[in-house]
Amino acid sequence: MAAFGSGRSWSNFPVSLSVVMNLKQQLDYLFNPQSVAVIGASNSLGKWGFHILSLLLAKGGREIYAINRNEPEVQGLKAYQSMREVPGPVDFAVIAVPFQDVPAAMEDCVRKGVKAAVIISGGLAEIGDEGARIEQEVVEIARRGGIRFVGPNCMGHFDSSSDFFTVPYLPPVKKGSLALITQSGNTSQTIVYLACEMGLGFSKYVSSGNEADLHFEDYLEYLAQDDETEVILGYIEGLREGRRFFELAKEITKKKPIVITKAGRTEAGARAARSHTAALAGSDVVCEAAFKQSGVIRVEEISELIDVALVLLGQPLPRGRRVGVLSTGGGMAVMAADVLMRQGLELPPLSPATMEKLNSILSRRWSHGNPVETGGDIFSYPCLWALIEDENIDAALIIGAAGVAASYARWVNLPPSVGDAVDRWLEASEDSEQRDMDKLMELMKRYQKPVIVAHMGIPNMRKGKVYEKMERNHVIPYLTPERAAKALAHLVEYSEYLGIAKGRG
Amino acid sequence: MAAFGSGRSWSNFPVSLSVVMNLKQQLDYLFNPQSVAVIGASNSLGKWGFHILSLLLAKGGREIYAINRNEPEVQGLKAYQSMREVPGPVDFAVIAVPFQDVPAAMEDCVRKGVKAAVIISGGLAEIGDEGARIEQEVVEIARRGGIRFVGPNCMGHFDSSSDFFTVPYLPPVKKGSLALITQSGNTSQTIVYLACEMGLGFSKYVSSGNEADLHFEDYLEYLAQDDETEVILGYIEGLREGRRFFELAKEITKKKPIVITKAGRTEAGARAARSHTAALAGSDVVCEAAFKQSGVIRVEEISELIDVALVLLGQPLPRGRRVGVLSTGGGMAVMAADVLMRQGLELPPLSPATMEKLNSILSRRWSHGNPVETGGDIFSYPCLWALIEDENIDAALIIGAAGVAASYARWVNLPPSVGDAVDRWLEASEDSEQRDMDKLMELMKRYQKPVIVAHMGIPNMRKGKVYEKMERNHVIPYLTPERAAKALAHLVEYSEYLGIAKGRG
Repeated sequence: MAAFGSGRSWSNFPVSLSVVMNLKQQLDYLFNPQSVAVIGASNSLGKWGFHILSLLLAKGGREIYAINRNEPEVQGLKAYQSMREVPGPVDFAVIAVPFQDVPAAMEDCVRKGVKAAVIISGGLAEIGDEGARIEQEVVEIARRGGIRFVGPNCMGHFDSSSDFFTVPYLPPVKKGSLALITQSGNTSQTIVYLACEMGLGFSKYVSSGNEADLHFEDYLEYLAQDDETEVILGYIEGLREGRRFFELAKEITKKKPIVITKAGRTEAGARAARSHTAALAGSDVVCEAAFKQSGVIRVEEISELIDVALVLLGQPLPRGRRVGVLSTGGGMAVMAADVLMRQGLELPPLSPATMEKLNSILSRRWSHGNPVETGGDIFSYPCLWALIEDENIDAALIIGAAGVAASYARWVNLPPSVGDAVDRWLEASEDSEQRDMDKLMELMKRYQKPVIVAHMGIPNMRKGKVYEKMERNHVIPYLTPERAAKALAHLVEYSEYLGIAKGRG
Repeated sequence: MAAFGSGRSWSNFPVSLSVVMNLKQQLDYLFNPQSVAVIGASNSLGKWGFHILSLLLAKGGREIYAINRNEPEVQGLKAYQSMREVPGPVDFAVIAVPFQDVPAAMEDCVRKGVKAAVIISGGLAEIGDEGARIEQEVVEIARRGGIRFVGPNCMGHFDSSSDFFTVPYLPPVKKGSLALITQSGNTSQTIVYLACEMGLGFSKYVSSGNEADLHFEDYLEYLAQDDETEVILGYIEGLREGRRFFELAKEITKKKPIVITKAGRTEAGARAARSHTAALAGSDVVCEAAFKQSGVIRVEEISELIDVALVLLGQPLPRGRRVGVLSTGGGMAVMAADVLMRQGLELPPLSPATMEKLNSILSRRWSHGNPVETGGDIFSYPCLWALIEDENIDAALIIGAAGVAASYARWVNLPPSVGDAVDRWLEASEDSEQRDMDKLMELMKRYQKPVIVAHMGIPNMRKGKVYEKMERNHVIPYLTPERAAKALAHLVEYSEYLGIAKGRG
């Protein structure tokens, strides 16, 4: 496991006995402090110290102190020249000052009795020897005072439940059950945006930066015990405690899935990672094997983190890899068949009972096989029920507008004279579709068979009661069959790892 | 080429001499008729004959006739029992009646002197022998009358320039220079939506269905001569005239790029394709070779059609595959390096002159190599100019918020007290960014080097003058580095095919 990282960890450092807390207690201060100081609070737009302070002020709900050496007031708030002047206690500090001033800022935090901090500032170990020396100095100061900290060289963190945000540069975040630990703050903007598009929200988030003190593994251990987190997502460039990661993951994935994108797979990527967060990218082959053995779901692209999170939250774990495809239009079914095969999934023949059921439901135009192409029929819930009840099938993939004529009709340019009739028609379809969906979800649970949907409406057109019901149940359509099939394949792999699905062959 | 299809084509059938027109004249009637009859016009919501008529009425601008055997009035319009009763001439007919009534409808069209038609109805050759027999009958009737038609078993077509739409189930379409020919109507909903998200519009669109009369190759030939079309996109399940496609493509791709997704790559996909549009999927190996030899850009997923269209419209063709990466945050640079390598692109070292320029622009925190990671500096246009002027570099990939602090600041929760100042700051950044962008585009043209952007803002946050300028110039950011790198790789391949870029090795 040496290829994973240097193994340097908290336990190697002397700890001041008066402040010994376990990891959970320490990180509770990180995610929900009562009082916060922003060291480097600023009146200048564009500065981190400006945006973080304004974010904290806008959220409210805790004591906020602005620290600025030169200004008496910052954003309407009295500013203190140093932490020593702050009247009340301070649980948590945001450090957003030039790199050479970070040790002094941390020294002030120790004197003030701060419990946890985030160091936004860059210019440390990722830059070279001088930065590494300063970073080491900061670590030693923090250890002396029992302060745990995020970063340096990071974008902040949040806890949606306590509404505590030190990360200003994210799209609006919904509360939810995903946690994200990322060694790159920038990637998280895309990840959070994609989650929002799929109706998913977050419990906690950390941009871990250089991980001078708190490591990826520390956050992982904390999130394993966090009741608000159901799925842990991670973006990794290199691990500092490979063996600890592996041991933790092996335990956690038994109950809580972990989905990881690891960059630095190619030589150029690994080189870039070294210069980025001073991380050892390690041998990708070793990582790959460790992920597999510990049940970690590894995805290639950051967008897949969210695609996989969706099935993990919304679907039962299937008992095998035999997929029934249902489509109203053939083209999408063809694409889906291709992509399912490429993902190693199977399209078995349907049972005679299912063939009979479908013959009685569909017009003679249906495809008479798997994929089931209805030949244009839109309201195909009964077909879907038939598929789920088929003993040859472990999961279903719906492609096209199964059941949601409503979402289609909204795109049509209608003359005003018929607008009212359309509204009534949509409402009627929505009610019956909701009943159909209830039955569907009951069957999914009873038979433990996932139903993945692709291309039912398009994101900026999604609305109405049916869609809201889908969103509540995390059965959101993917935009393309490829994305749906890849997510399903990862769900099957995880189910195989847990011994729920039978493996191949 | 036999694996491509049956070779059945228009020239094998006798043509009524009185109506001999060339393909261009015939298809002009398809895309811009003066008078239109909807056979199967309906008052029933959800029926094709309802939605197509209401769409035609909403668009207006030509004579519209409703044909319905039983109703005296459809959607407020006088309805005719048959085509024979229509008073004026009819150029074009939409046929949306049950499959067994299609031959009679086509017979009526012949008597009325209709020039072109679209048959929406399914239930023909894709179903089996009986359907195939009826479809053949329809073809023979149409040929006798010199009528060319789209379909059957399709979703309609449009011409954005003449504002003629027979396809009701699409998201709103922007005018533009992409043409799309698809053997699956359903896939086009996603394709049109993705185009809209990237600010791209369409000239013409055809859902070609079973291609009983007009083949994919006919549309291709027409679009080659269409001045409004700059890039031709296609979704193919199987070609009916493989050799003709190949010969056409070889000529067209010298001036106009063709981008294709071909489904049915796996056995299951090919089987599904056969039942869908009665197409011969053919040997995928043969297709792959033919695409390569004729300069057709083949992509795997439907979303890539749009990703590649964007670079084709917005970028110069590069002279090689050496890419310089510029990033404000390292994580994305790592992902980009990985994905560029996987796509067979190269990340060469920077020239000493570029290193010197970057040293003078950036703080000491920059990565001192390729990828160029600025270490957090946002306004990095001068870095980009330096990259483009580097003789070691053929193209640049920007990852992160290069230059658009504006788009970031909009996400921040600002207290109302500072809102006005932020607005002024954004306006000021926008003006200077526009000047920087002008210089960038001048350099791109002068050195013939593409600049691809990933992850600059997120789609539903994109606004402001800078973004509008980017949209006008088709330099829209991709959501992920993967998508950007794949698109760039296809651009390089096309440039190599045309002999502009030097090939590998």
